[in-house]
Amino acid sequence: MVLAPPLCPQSSGVRRVKKPPSGPRGRRARSATMLLHRAVIPCLRQACRLQSVPSRFCIRACSTNDSLQPQCPSLAFSGANSSTRGWRVMGTLLGLGAVLAYHDHRCRAAEKSPRIYTREEVKSHSSLETRIWVTLGCEVFDVTEFVDLHPGGPSKLMLAAGGPLEPFWALYAVHDQAHVREILAQYKVGELSPEDKAPSTLKTSDPYADDPVRHPALKVNSQRPFNAEPPPELLTENYITPNPIFFTRNHLPVPNLKPETYRLHVVGPPGCQSLSLSLDDLYQFPKHEVTVTLQCAGNRRSEMTQFKEVKGLEWNAGAISTARWAGARLCDVLAKAGHQLRETEAHVCFEGLDSDPTGTAYGASIPLARAMDPEADVLLAYEMNGQPLPRDHGFPVRVVVPGVVGARHVKWLGKVSVEPEESYSHWQRRDYKGFSPSVDWDTVDFDSAPSIQELPVQSAITEPKDGETVQSGEVTIKGYAWSGGGRAIVRVDVSLDGGLTWQVAELDGEEQRPRKAWAWRLWQLQAPVPAGKKELNIVCKAVDDSYNVQPDTVAPIWNLRGVLSNAWHRVHVRVTP
Amino acid sequence: MVLAPPLCPQSSGVRRVKKPPSGPRGRRARSATMLLHRAVIPCLRQACRLQSVPSRFCIRACSTNDSLQPQCPSLAFSGANSSTRGWRVMGTLLGLGAVLAYHDHRCRAAEKSPRIYTREEVKSHSSLETRIWVTLGCEVFDVTEFVDLHPGGPSKLMLAAGGPLEPFWALYAVHDQAHVREILAQYKVGELSPEDKAPSTLKTSDPYADDPVRHPALKVNSQRPFNAEPPPELLTENYITPNPIFFTRNHLPVPNLKPETYRLHVVGPPGCQSLSLSLDDLYQFPKHEVTVTLQCAGNRRSEMTQFKEVKGLEWNAGAISTARWAGARLCDVLAKAGHQLRETEAHVCFEGLDSDPTGTAYGASIPLARAMDPEADVLLAYEMNGQPLPRDHGFPVRVVVPGVVGARHVKWLGKVSVEPEESYSHWQRRDYKGFSPSVDWDTVDFDSAPSIQELPVQSAITEPKDGETVQSGEVTIKGYAWSGGGRAIVRVDVSLDGGLTWQVAELDGEEQRPRKAWAWRLWQLQAPVPAGKKELNIVCKAVDDSYNVQPDTVAPIWNLRGVLSNAWHRVHVRVTP
Repeated sequence: MVLAPPLCPQSSGVRRVKKPPSGPRGRRARSATMLLHRAVIPCLRQACRLQSVPSRFCIRACSTNDSLQPQCPSLAFSGANSSTRGWRVMGTLLGLGAVLAYHDHRCRAAEKSPRIYTREEVKSHSSLETRIWVTLGCEVFDVTEFVDLHPGGPSKLMLAAGGPLEPFWALYAVHDQAHVREILAQYKVGELSPEDKAPSTLKTSDPYADDPVRHPALKVNSQRPFNAEPPPELLTENYITPNPIFFTRNHLPVPNLKPETYRLHVVGPPGCQSLSLSLDDLYQFPKHEVTVTLQCAGNRRSEMTQFKEVKGLEWNAGAISTARWAGARLCDVLAKAGHQLRETEAHVCFEGLDSDPTGTAYGASIPLARAMDPEADVLLAYEMNGQPLPRDHGFPVRVVVPGVVGARHVKWLGKVSVEPEESYSHWQRRDYKGFSPSVDWDTVDFDSAPSIQELPVQSAITEPKDGETVQSGEVTIKGYAWSGGGRAIVRVDVSLDGGLTWQVAELDGEEQRPRKAWAWRLWQLQAPVPAGKKELNIVCKAVDDSYNVQPDTVAPIWNLRGVLSNAWHRVHVRVTP
Repeated sequence: MVLAPPLCPQSSGVRRVKKPPSGPRGRRARSATMLLHRAVIPCLRQACRLQSVPSRFCIRACSTNDSLQPQCPSLAFSGANSSTRGWRVMGTLLGLGAVLAYHDHRCRAAEKSPRIYTREEVKSHSSLETRIWVTLGCEVFDVTEFVDLHPGGPSKLMLAAGGPLEPFWALYAVHDQAHVREILAQYKVGELSPEDKAPSTLKTSDPYADDPVRHPALKVNSQRPFNAEPPPELLTENYITPNPIFFTRNHLPVPNLKPETYRLHVVGPPGCQSLSLSLDDLYQFPKHEVTVTLQCAGNRRSEMTQFKEVKGLEWNAGAISTARWAGARLCDVLAKAGHQLRETEAHVCFEGLDSDPTGTAYGASIPLARAMDPEADVLLAYEMNGQPLPRDHGFPVRVVVPGVVGARHVKWLGKVSVEPEESYSHWQRRDYKGFSPSVDWDTVDFDSAPSIQELPVQSAITEPKDGETVQSGEVTIKGYAWSGGGRAIVRVDVSLDGGLTWQVAELDGEEQRPRKAWAWRLWQLQAPVPAGKKELNIVCKAVDDSYNVQPDTVAPIWNLRGVLSNAWHRVHVRVTP
């Protein structure tokens, strides 16, 4: 694990969260009783919830080089007054809470003498039983006592348990303030050993050795090739998924491409010259920006596996994320190369610059009609959330096909051609297709099913988590909903009783243009917990604007590759009496 | 009921079913034993099944004036050799079977003396208990003994029980042959009374008095306004639904419009003149033809009603039909009026010439983007299956919006305008919307849901029928599948055990252009009946090319208007031991 250096100072020109009050007001607070302290913490939580309702801010966090070195993490507001006000309230309460927490704990930690620990030792302290340790820079902290006081909720802090705080502070820049460091200082128990401060060396014989370093919050489903998803409670924290925790689905090692030598080969139609485009050439096309949700065909595969074994990575509900992409429109580049729509069906084939040991590159295709339709917003993207693409997401150029399965958004794009047939790639013709539950590996005929392009309507619950315990009184349920083909989500129904009765959730996130609903809607429902209930079977289902709905159960849509898992999402929780 | 005159002679220029053998071969057959007769009937049935597998023939039957006077019913083949061969086999077997049936019955009926009956008396003979009577011209026949011998199956003949044969013979022109009339003659029991030969007079005080006469096979859900669906076993008999049994969904009395005075008012954009188009003017636009399935939003509502009462007509699975429509493209007409696509969302509003006693016309709208897209194939249709539109289907001009709910295909079109908002019609804003099962008439907020445009994926079983008894050995299951928005059906799964295990049905009907799958696929599955099974719970579910699927059960999609009923279709049958 590369150890990140301390956060750099606040950059100018970017609006920051207003610093919470200090001085006389802070001192007055510090003298408050523990009773007051306990009373304030719930307010703090409330403020954080206010803040975490998806708004239009975009977190500029790590990072184009994926080294997780936070580069001036900051909050860029879209200027909505109400949102700024919410942040100010939150900041004020956070400041107050912080100094109270400081009062509560300074006595205990101050007297302990720092000791030297290895990263391995820190890692072993990742549960309440072993105590919760984290690091910041070279310092080691035991934050066990603080977990329950964490304004963002205990589960968010637990994501960092046993490891460094930097990657999380980079995502949630509100932490990077003097008074937060002050609180943390009280929990210091030692320092990292000198050898653990240097980055680990790479084994160069490993084709994956040059893969970028990833964010520790990601739940890794496969290390080689790297496949990982954000934990559900972070997934719907923001409407725009921060780059470092955007789900990653790689099929091969990540190529390390140099922007100055990168060339995109665009094959021209018969009789026309092909194009070889540098990054600068691509920048000359009109820059087009669009917010798009990407979803892996295997999202929620783990639910299919529970019914019957499938072939594929064990994705939970996090193989979906949303970013603001920018780049050249594919239709403009194809037109420049001399292509136009054809009377007969044709396909635009993409080849990545990632390849297996035999030299076979990742490939996929989409219909030419979609590629040439300016309204379809198909991009050759070079920016993701205002940054150059991270290496894991296709640096320097990837395809973005709004409304279409992730597998067609070819990363590290090397070649574009127009063909009468779909791509002959394995991933186009022998994978990413849906079959009847009756089809097994002995009977499957891949030619009998169309390649997945547009995805069906989908939704999932991100909070609470399956197996969690919730308070009686009221429960807040959060999640996402999205549909393929630009079809907007028009409703999310939530049930607390396994689907017998339903309530309509509130849709958050951006309204989108008709027929171009490329991005998800986040949603939430605050519902009273029925009196006397000891457990809840929470279910969600979404409806899109063609009024397609999700199927009730997973068994009848089970398929041997475990794709297209979009049955009602179900979460079982216990209720504290 | 208007009594139809005898069928007119075979028209020239249209290929006909080859006449079955007569002469020596027929005479030899006539001398065959009853044993042979019984053995041949199943072959005949088989031939009829062969023939009824949907092919590309189009039945030219009644009729533009809806009077059910068969106008040279004929079969126009698309020229497929295999299909012609199937018909020849069928014809041969039919001829053989017919003469055998003749032999079986000529002795019994010949000696009976004709008597005079009223239509009311004939109508009372419509079950095996009361005996099965039918009429042809002025003659009355008791076909009770023939029902089981009917080559098309008993259920088809039973559709005519108690009434005239003409409307059915007009649909299934294979009957219009001398040897069929010969068979029928043997069952004659009398003649119609003279007053029953004249059409009944109209009550002019009734706003519906001038409605056209309809085909007796239609299952009427409401007489005023007229709403009716074809019986399931006829629905999937042909890929193209014959006009007389195309499902009819009227909201108001049928206007009686004169083609020579008809005008379509197309409002121009600000600063431009409006158009007033005669039928001849419309004919001047390029004629565009497209095969489109129309489905009522309330199709299969009766299944929702079984769960909980809804407000709406009791449609079974027949509020869906397919026709070949021809007319001017809406985009051409709008362009002629000076309209073009706009940056902001806009809607094309349609007004019908049907109106209620207050003068309120039927109205609806679709987004301008769909109307202006030449690939969306939106028509101002004046032809349905090669005939002028029947009055029940909008004569002289209706809108056809492929892939979109029937309610937007405004009939008897009077006015087209482009507006910044959706139509303010009741049927756009206060009807034809989907809601959560939790919403009732006390809580419904019609503004909270989008008007239905594209419909979700749908399928239903048409044979066998619910409650029917099937033979052990093998069962043939037939049905239709369709999805909105031009999304093609890629698979239909069928289960014989209520959804525990599945088999993939064979898709019949026309392959369609990608993204323009405007018409249904018919499907069938021949499956062995599991040994020892006394009953089957047959289920079907379809998948479209965005891999949307139908929900398992109807309760979670129940809504107060009973629209969008697309859960798995279920049919329960008994198996004869």
